[in-house]
Amino acid sequence: MLMRDARNGDMTDEVQIAAEHEGVDPERIMRLVASGRAVIPKNVNHDFGRIRAIGEGLKVKVNVNLGTSKDYVNLEEELEKVRISERYGADAVMDLSTGGDVKTIRKKILSESDLMVGTVPIYQAGIEKAREPGKAVVDMTEDDMFNAIEQHGKDGVDFITVHCGVNLHSVERLKRQRRTTGMVSRGGSFLLAWMLHNGEDNPLFSNYDHLLDIAREYEMTLSLGDGFRPGGIADSTDRPQLDELLTLGELVDRAREADVQAMVEGPGHIPLHQVAANVQLQKAACRGAPFYVLGPIVTDIFPGYDHITSAIGGAVAAMNGADFLCYVTPAEHLALPAVEDVKEGLIATRIAAHAADITRGIDIEKDHAMDRARYALDWRKQFELSSDPERADEYRKRRGPSNDDVCSMCGDFCALKMTREYLDGIEE
Amino acid sequence: MLMRDARNGDMTDEVQIAAEHEGVDPERIMRLVASGRAVIPKNVNHDFGRIRAIGEGLKVKVNVNLGTSKDYVNLEEELEKVRISERYGADAVMDLSTGGDVKTIRKKILSESDLMVGTVPIYQAGIEKAREPGKAVVDMTEDDMFNAIEQHGKDGVDFITVHCGVNLHSVERLKRQRRTTGMVSRGGSFLLAWMLHNGEDNPLFSNYDHLLDIAREYEMTLSLGDGFRPGGIADSTDRPQLDELLTLGELVDRAREADVQAMVEGPGHIPLHQVAANVQLQKAACRGAPFYVLGPIVTDIFPGYDHITSAIGGAVAAMNGADFLCYVTPAEHLALPAVEDVKEGLIATRIAAHAADITRGIDIEKDHAMDRARYALDWRKQFELSSDPERADEYRKRRGPSNDDVCSMCGDFCALKMTREYLDGIEE
Repeated sequence: MLMRDARNGDMTDEVQIAAEHEGVDPERIMRLVASGRAVIPKNVNHDFGRIRAIGEGLKVKVNVNLGTSKDYVNLEEELEKVRISERYGADAVMDLSTGGDVKTIRKKILSESDLMVGTVPIYQAGIEKAREPGKAVVDMTEDDMFNAIEQHGKDGVDFITVHCGVNLHSVERLKRQRRTTGMVSRGGSFLLAWMLHNGEDNPLFSNYDHLLDIAREYEMTLSLGDGFRPGGIADSTDRPQLDELLTLGELVDRAREADVQAMVEGPGHIPLHQVAANVQLQKAACRGAPFYVLGPIVTDIFPGYDHITSAIGGAVAAMNGADFLCYVTPAEHLALPAVEDVKEGLIATRIAAHAADITRGIDIEKDHAMDRARYALDWRKQFELSSDPERADEYRKRRGPSNDDVCSMCGDFCALKMTREYLDGIEE
Repeated sequence: MLMRDARNGDMTDEVQIAAEHEGVDPERIMRLVASGRAVIPKNVNHDFGRIRAIGEGLKVKVNVNLGTSKDYVNLEEELEKVRISERYGADAVMDLSTGGDVKTIRKKILSESDLMVGTVPIYQAGIEKAREPGKAVVDMTEDDMFNAIEQHGKDGVDFITVHCGVNLHSVERLKRQRRTTGMVSRGGSFLLAWMLHNGEDNPLFSNYDHLLDIAREYEMTLSLGDGFRPGGIADSTDRPQLDELLTLGELVDRAREADVQAMVEGPGHIPLHQVAANVQLQKAACRGAPFYVLGPIVTDIFPGYDHITSAIGGAVAAMNGADFLCYVTPAEHLALPAVEDVKEGLIATRIAAHAADITRGIDIEKDHAMDRARYALDWRKQFELSSDPERADEYRKRRGPSNDDVCSMCGDFCALKMTREYLDGIEE
């Protein structure tokens, strides 16, 4: 029991590995885990190498969403996305498959991934029901929901998104709000439709203690989902979103009392000047629980470029304390991402995470080494230090310079070449 | 005389056109121009349509750098970059050509551009000298420098970057600093090398009054260049940079006294947590003069993706008051950008500018319209509202859905489809 062990002051391998990655004293990680201000998602049934802590003052972590949809089912492609995720520095992948044999896909991803794996079990419960003749998502039973969660626990899923804050109370607030974009959370929409169709409260809320029991058994970390996240900046930071956040804060308390690790998911679409406030609100309302944000996307009119709109929001969120960034790909709002989109989205999000790490004084040495390599006009070293050396090399070669020292932008009028002699006596 | 007219309370066409673009009262623009808190770069010898004011509380403007280098000279390609700039919402282009017949290239760009055009006249002075047999950049004379500036004025250049803050005093500070990256400003490096080679102070500083006379004659706006901008985050916000900023503030005062419009250029490479401070310092030290920033780039280890690293810095700079963003392309630090790079860089910078505009309550209606179109699953409208409809369409089509209502990410499990019936009684 990671959290209980930490509270008892018992050092665990997981804490040690996570601390080594951070380059910090394991005692510090242990205290963070004990207090719930950091989580280490790691299912007892999942063996993987890159065990990470997510939370206060630590390196900002990055998640890659992958998985099939009804229209695109290709296991090999999804596994390629896992490899891309490992290669370009993701800390987690979430399997959001809703097409094909989702159980086999999940197991394959779990066995091949060296990263922690998250899922949204309600998807499986809903789509399996919808595949039955004459049935729809809203026909799933409470048992279907908890059975799916239990199954994911058995399979080794490290963290699960559970939309426990979507309840009958919050739906009333949603209706009074008269939002522009309604509800855009897929898992949240399954539960909202279910509640309104069946006239009952969300079982993940009303039977939250049962959920905690399952989570504790497999040591799954709860990622308390934001079913009411805004689907456009018109709805950002509105009352349903904030109301749900308060509920999620209460559920964090209960998770901690039950020795279950919990983090909180956040928006979504937020204009840039509201990003810091959103993080500060979450940290206050959820007593410092790790904050896992999707984006946030800071403008809605650039479809095809939402990896950039979200890198801006993600960097500012993380600078202000967000701990875990869910990537967004350029295909967002348009299509299921292909492998190349996954790479583009991941690198954009890594940029956001690293930009925020620098503000925390973390991992700045590599940037300084790059600065030295640039001054030295040492191109080989520059590529070595690049987060995507192939891409950098490709740009440089596509329009190569006639003089190998410099690049084709300034050529011999390179400012460094012009001045190094005068500043440092370097002969050109 | 734009500035003098504004001070006298005389309304001009330029102020009217600029105000119309902003959707604000022309009196407000007139007051901003009179006080120097906004500039309207417009040479008396340049006719163009998209006259813009740059400054306090206005829409954030975007500049595209283009131009040849010694290794890549292709006038048609540079003109294509002008067209791309107009199409994707740039407000200005700067012709930074240093290869080929730079005079003809400049004139052609000026005649074809519907946007304001900026240049760096010292480039021309330097490269022309370097082309003479046995001569180097440092052999240019003071007359060469001022003749180039005068020529750009006659040709119709709307704003010129002049590195007046690079002087013998500031060079001493640079030496004491022992920077990692030395000097990375190309124009600044011409002048630094010139000063140290010739043992004389920078004529653009020591004869600044002469520069003001030329600028006033042609109504060129001065863009006071930051020769000491940091070339890597290792050097950000250091003493040479700040010392130069103080000098630029004094030069803004003198420009205003001479009825010459002036803005101030800023970094460069700045870690995210220092971006706001950099803008606030500039606004304070330069008495509210418009701030024109390059990037800023917030991490150095992502060459090939610097349009993203700079979109993050630019958005945060503009949210904090920067007025004018110089784009950065993915080819930055690697090669002269091609047309496609110009488009990528421009759109990333437009995202930053628009994200900041939203924080000022400007142009938010289009985002809200997009949010409504998304809720309505109205794809045609979504494309219409997209800043790059072709790109959005391409993503959607590449992995088209089997059901035209939705996209291939969620298919029939679209959250909107799942819940619109319950929230708004919309039949699916």
